[in-house]
Amino acid sequence: MRILVTNDDGVFSPGLCALAEAATRFGDVRIVAPDVEQSSMAHAITSSRPLLQRRARIGRFDAWRVNGTPADCVALGTHLWEHVDIVFSGINLGLNVGNSMWHSGTLAAAKQAALLGFRGIAFSAPETGDDPDYSSIRSYLDTVIREVLGRPELSLVNVNFPMRPRGVRWTCQSVRHYDGRVVPARDPMGREQFWFVPVPIEAPEPGTDRWAVDEGLVSVTPLRLDLTDHRALDQLLAEP
Amino acid sequence: MRILVTNDDGVFSPGLCALAEAATRFGDVRIVAPDVEQSSMAHAITSSRPLLQRRARIGRFDAWRVNGTPADCVALGTHLWEHVDIVFSGINLGLNVGNSMWHSGTLAAAKQAALLGFRGIAFSAPETGDDPDYSSIRSYLDTVIREVLGRPELSLVNVNFPMRPRGVRWTCQSVRHYDGRVVPARDPMGREQFWFVPVPIEAPEPGTDRWAVDEGLVSVTPLRLDLTDHRALDQLLAEP
Repeated sequence: MRILVTNDDGVFSPGLCALAEAATRFGDVRIVAPDVEQSSMAHAITSSRPLLQRRARIGRFDAWRVNGTPADCVALGTHLWEHVDIVFSGINLGLNVGNSMWHSGTLAAAKQAALLGFRGIAFSAPETGDDPDYSSIRSYLDTVIREVLGRPELSLVNVNFPMRPRGVRWTCQSVRHYDGRVVPARDPMGREQFWFVPVPIEAPEPGTDRWAVDEGLVSVTPLRLDLTDHRALDQLLAEP
Repeated sequence: MRILVTNDDGVFSPGLCALAEAATRFGDVRIVAPDVEQSSMAHAITSSRPLLQRRARIGRFDAWRVNGTPADCVALGTHLWEHVDIVFSGINLGLNVGNSMWHSGTLAAAKQAALLGFRGIAFSAPETGDDPDYSSIRSYLDTVIREVLGRPELSLVNVNFPMRPRGVRWTCQSVRHYDGRVVPARDPMGREQFWFVPVPIEAPEPGTDRWAVDEGLVSVTPLRLDLTDHRALDQLLAEP
């Protein structure tokens, strides 16, 4: 099995190396990832300039670093390496749950894989400082990969780990709240500026991704790539 | 009614001015849009640096130009202007149908409005050269705005115009095909590079956005902001 590994934190992220190490227990691994951090880049692609790839060595893996977005890396990576079976994206330095997933470059890489006809899994874990230790999630990482690989009907899956997992749960996306807003600030010259900041969300709905992680459970969410509100559309089309 | 108008082609795009002119027939208009083109930026937000806003005059409208993405502009615009009722995004210079909508900054601005609890409508039309003429779609633009404003249950709507409309149709997103791929090229120094290019899609499925525009119909697609594959999730949760 050919597993393309990418992320949005950049090719030298420790989370990427940890994911590649896990992936190598399941197949052949190649890394194609952004040359610089691409956090919050969502499903952006680069359409106004060419993409370049350069070689890198990440641990014991061949890697390509690309001057583009996570979605670019998947498009280019699956062009350069034929017969890819699945794309793993992450491990992101920070969770991607609820409506924050709309801005996620990590998830976008997995979405891009699904758009191109491959499978995609996004992996995220809480950010824990300069030198993250993934030993506490390693066995759960293998469990989740094995579980998802065994269900080929799932083309797109979003996985979020708590710091010290005590189980795994199938979940839905938490959609009740949105956790981003703009706040004013001043620069050192006293001029007005604005920051896009996350706001804490309390009491997430049971059964959701955010709730599972809060409960110490690995959240595994099956996603689909159809934005249509089919319920609303059916009602509109049924009108006389 | 307060209508915030934005886009992804940048604040000086002729499509933005045309949309603001239409919006002013329905309410008070303010423009908050990217200072430079942000095409294909999808739902990216700016999290690593502050946002700045500067004033501009666009036709007879007050405008703010922002050094950020379309989604940033909606977050900042609804912060600066209280009690916004709805966000109009566009008119994009180019269609946003099918799976290409995943990369759309125009649609992302409308999505950001919905995430923040407002309503959002994205408008797109074919790109027709340096000085686009929107006179052929003007009456349909008013018709669609009136129709969507009258249905407050629709929080997120994607509208695509053909060049010379002959009707309006409620549609779903075309999800069967994806129209982006990477192709190799050479720069003037002979070095290998890659371009992310669109590929033509033929024979779109009847009832979809892409089909409607091909048929000369204005496509109006109700969207939802929940990526969960609920059918797959229900099956997974029903397992013993």
